[in-house]
Amino acid sequence: MAPVGPRSGDAIFSSIDRVNAELFTLTYGAIVRQLLTDLEEVEEVNKQLDQMGYNIGIRLIDEFLAKSGVSRCVDFKETAEMIAKVGFKMFLGVTASVTSWDADGTCCSIILEDNPLVDFVELPDTCQGLYYCNILSGVIRGALEMVSMKTEVTWTRDVLRGDDAYELQVKLLKQVAEEYPYKDDE
Amino acid sequence: MAPVGPRSGDAIFSSIDRVNAELFTLTYGAIVRQLLTDLEEVEEVNKQLDQMGYNIGIRLIDEFLAKSGVSRCVDFKETAEMIAKVGFKMFLGVTASVTSWDADGTCCSIILEDNPLVDFVELPDTCQGLYYCNILSGVIRGALEMVSMKTEVTWTRDVLRGDDAYELQVKLLKQVAEEYPYKDDE
Repeated sequence: MAPVGPRSGDAIFSSIDRVNAELFTLTYGAIVRQLLTDLEEVEEVNKQLDQMGYNIGIRLIDEFLAKSGVSRCVDFKETAEMIAKVGFKMFLGVTASVTSWDADGTCCSIILEDNPLVDFVELPDTCQGLYYCNILSGVIRGALEMVSMKTEVTWTRDVLRGDDAYELQVKLLKQVAEEYPYKDDE
Repeated sequence: MAPVGPRSGDAIFSSIDRVNAELFTLTYGAIVRQLLTDLEEVEEVNKQLDQMGYNIGIRLIDEFLAKSGVSRCVDFKETAEMIAKVGFKMFLGVTASVTSWDADGTCCSIILEDNPLVDFVELPDTCQGLYYCNILSGVIRGALEMVSMKTEVTWTRDVLRGDDAYELQVKLLKQVAEEYPYKDDE
């Protein structure tokens, strides 16, 4: 069967099972608080959140591919657009945009227009080094690794740290097209 | 202003911000895994999940009261029905029913028809004592405490532990009507 074209993030989002965003926000806040208590070092919490996100991403990619109708992207540019336009909408119900491409098309920024993870969140002074949303960078890294793209994903702007936006830098380190685990006709 | 009547859980659920249920399920799974790693003792994990739920519940009650139009319930029976019919629908998108009332109307069971927390979950043999969904009992306990009902909430059936349903027993220990923090006309 020929692959169907990708559906819009809005259409997918309205057709899938969802839970209350505030419950999700508060649950995520409870994780971060728990990690801060258990691990003490903010740097360790950043690492752990990223790792949890990675573990989620390597599973969430299946849902993304199954529900979105997206099959293979022609290049990393298209991949980044899919994450921003379809992925963020489909999972968090928010829109994101891609900017700041480097010359060879292997590094860009994804800017979130809204971020449901941080509603009601204020960081105390003791948590200044915390990347509160590090789970998101981990999710992207994990999901992309399952479609053979090794990436580095880092927060370059973070409103909780005083910046004017949420901006993730996504850098393609290595792409192994042959290991792509999904056939077009699946 | 006179209080408006309660809206149905369905109507509220369709009008509020939501996120993808699978993302929530995987995120919750990541919390449980993290707690099992950090705390080692299953009994400690149960306690911690309940406490995290409590902390969420004492905040989520505000969203419930604001969005549902529910003001004061006449008795604990009505309260339990609100949790089952409006609360579960509004936050998790699932329906629940209330059964097994005791003679004096202070203890009942809430049975979940569906439980998005446990999709794809199987407990390994090492986690047999785990109450995987203990965050939910904590949420109910915390939320009710904010409307002056001291309760004990325990899982009496759990599909992950081999039972045929998810059943929470909710027992009213003490009710202090005067401390109810919301006025009817707010």
